Amino acid sequence: MGTGDVMPVTGAWRPGDDAGHRQFFTFAIDRRFAVDSGATLTDVTVAYETWGRLAPDASNAVLVCHAWTGESHAAGSAGRGHSSPGWWDAMIGPGRPIDTDKWFVVCPNVLGGCQGTTGPASFVPGTTKPYGSQFPVITIRDMVRVQARLADHLGIASWHTVIGGSMGGMQVLEWAITYPERVRGFVPIATCMQSTAQQIAWGAIGRRAIGLDPRWRGGDYYDAEPGDGPAEGLSIARMVAQVTFRSDNVFTERFGRAMTHRAELGDRFGLWQQFEVEQYLDHHGRKLGHRFDTNSYLLIGKAMDLHDVGRQRGHLEAAMSRIKAPCLSIGISSDMLYPTYQQRQIVEILGSIGGQAGYIEIDSPHGHDAFLINLDQLADPIADFLEVRKLP
Amino acid sequence: MGTGDVMPVTGAWRPGDDAGHRQFFTFAIDRRFAVDSGATLTDVTVAYETWGRLAPDASNAVLVCHAWTGESHAAGSAGRGHSSPGWWDAMIGPGRPIDTDKWFVVCPNVLGGCQGTTGPASFVPGTTKPYGSQFPVITIRDMVRVQARLADHLGIASWHTVIGGSMGGMQVLEWAITYPERVRGFVPIATCMQSTAQQIAWGAIGRRAIGLDPRWRGGDYYDAEPGDGPAEGLSIARMVAQVTFRSDNVFTERFGRAMTHRAELGDRFGLWQQFEVEQYLDHHGRKLGHRFDTNSYLLIGKAMDLHDVGRQRGHLEAAMSRIKAPCLSIGISSDMLYPTYQQRQIVEILGSIGGQAGYIEIDSPHGHDAFLINLDQLADPIADFLEVRKLP
Repeated sequence: MGTGDVMPVTGAWRPGDDAGHRQFFTFAIDRRFAVDSGATLTDVTVAYETWGRLAPDASNAVLVCHAWTGESHAAGSAGRGHSSPGWWDAMIGPGRPIDTDKWFVVCPNVLGGCQGTTGPASFVPGTTKPYGSQFPVITIRDMVRVQARLADHLGIASWHTVIGGSMGGMQVLEWAITYPERVRGFVPIATCMQSTAQQIAWGAIGRRAIGLDPRWRGGDYYDAEPGDGPAEGLSIARMVAQVTFRSDNVFTERFGRAMTHRAELGDRFGLWQQFEVEQYLDHHGRKLGHRFDTNSYLLIGKAMDLHDVGRQRGHLEAAMSRIKAPCLSIGISSDMLYPTYQQRQIVEILGSIGGQAGYIEIDSPHGHDAFLINLDQLADPIADFLEVRKLP
Repeated sequence: MGTGDVMPVTGAWRPGDDAGHRQFFTFAIDRRFAVDSGATLTDVTVAYETWGRLAPDASNAVLVCHAWTGESHAAGSAGRGHSSPGWWDAMIGPGRPIDTDKWFVVCPNVLGGCQGTTGPASFVPGTTKPYGSQFPVITIRDMVRVQARLADHLGIASWHTVIGGSMGGMQVLEWAITYPERVRGFVPIATCMQSTAQQIAWGAIGRRAIGLDPRWRGGDYYDAEPGDGPAEGLSIARMVAQVTFRSDNVFTERFGRAMTHRAELGDRFGLWQQFEVEQYLDHHGRKLGHRFDTNSYLLIGKAMDLHDVGRQRGHLEAAMSRIKAPCLSIGISSDMLYPTYQQRQIVEILGSIGGQAGYIEIDSPHGHDAFLINLDQLADPIADFLEVRKLP
């Protein structure tokens, strides 16, 4: 638990190869890679998957960016190193909203992750020792600059569209700003230009919980015996996030005040007896520990807190005015973590500086996670934006 | 830290004594006290304060119920065992909304607390050993039944009005339902009839953080060296609560994305470098550890999660139909923890069963804590309800 699965290396794709329907590749950056914090990484490897075929002029490439605990496996079934079906499977494929008969779709695992791309559970180059506490803090901008190296490698001069939700949307915005010539359209979903104090607060609480777990050992826990990793700290951090990903209404409908069967049979008034909602959070916390590395969770969370497209670019307007592409910004009515004013702000600021932008809102009770749930409401707007740049 | 201040016993009030302006008393229940969980406590002591004078017919008594980490010191300056001025000082006093020239105001510390009333940091009767892990889980109903013993002792057959916010409001509702003949009016503020799954979720996360702290030692940490108590677990639990007590807007206005001076000077990209909002949460977490016992925090939080006025009363309507008194229910526009639909539900359900109830809403950006902040908006409605039972 928490020791970070390292994905099997299945091949190294070169432009011109037949990408087929679904493949999982790795690409190693051959130069040193300096991150925003000032540290330098060597031998950065990027895990990514592709669907569809790249057009000879490379004009049909769509980048899909994953969220906090996501991975490159955006579409396709479980298996081949993936414990679950693709996290956006209904969105990506032949005849689906992101139609792989038309588009060549790429989804890379982010820098700092634990699903194939270099992260804290990776070995320090030339050793058999994981980075652990030595892995630097990274930023969303670092993630995006790694992805630009991947685009170079794939021969993709510019993306037809860059799409992503939550932290994926942060990458989307950084792409459009950092590489305005390389993004011809973008779709940020349930995300923000700058993390707010409240968003940072939730992140900070999770960090503190991980730091409190004595089994985290300052980040150097990779030689722990099975079951002796920082699973409880990670669980608590995930529980905080899980509440913010959902909504009061859905929790009430789903769990109400029901107690677990075990609590009903035993002492309803025991301090650790559980309501069903507690069991649900516990389950999600533990489940994450089986598929995700605690240090990656910590570092990617910190990257989200550091997210600010205005940083070192003067101010927000200056940053956003670098953008050249049309933007479809999508919010979720019940999102308590990234409230809809943040996605409307993207459109407002782009509108105020002469950009081309439209906003649509997913009407859902599910909260932030609706971008993974209410795909019926995402399908047409995204397909139409890809096809004809339709904006509301 | 976290070892639980035990308040000095300053006297034992008897009906007929001159209560003066502010006094702090304790009262010991002379019978065994059975709590909802099935356990029995002996020698339960109640710390309470009073303001104003009880009328000869005891008709002017107002009960003020405190929230999670509150105490009996609702009004008055700091000192005499109180580190802070009264938590509702501007509301209670001569000429104030709860006018002590007219009303005899009583505020008891709750059962399970650590500010004078029996709780987990109290000695097991006949020993010099604190209860610690042996203190039973308690309920809001237990707290209220203890307060009823206090009312008997004070010679108060019925309260003119029972008032409280947050967990104080839970006690208010339990009073009106458990003792309908003893409550002639009640004012629940920013509270609910039943804790929701989301509210339980926040509570559960805090519990887990305390349980993860190795210094909590299962609740038996009272002989720890100074500085070796479960301060970090309590801090994290409090941080969760503190975010839910406030609001996104106010956090943005107050902290934005500012980093602490220390982080600005040092490495902005350090994993543990702090944004100002983190420092604020940290400060509140640590501060609580200096004035509040971790086990009390845990048990009172659990009591809130167990709060359900319908429990063992058939259903919600059956419970609420026991009420005989008029109700002024107060909500806060920006409350994310106890959203206003919960305070409106109180009025709706009372209305549907022929009760007398009205709802007002505090218009505030401050979130749940507005019941401690926007006293200007509480003043007239509460004064008018006390005086003439005015309802909107």
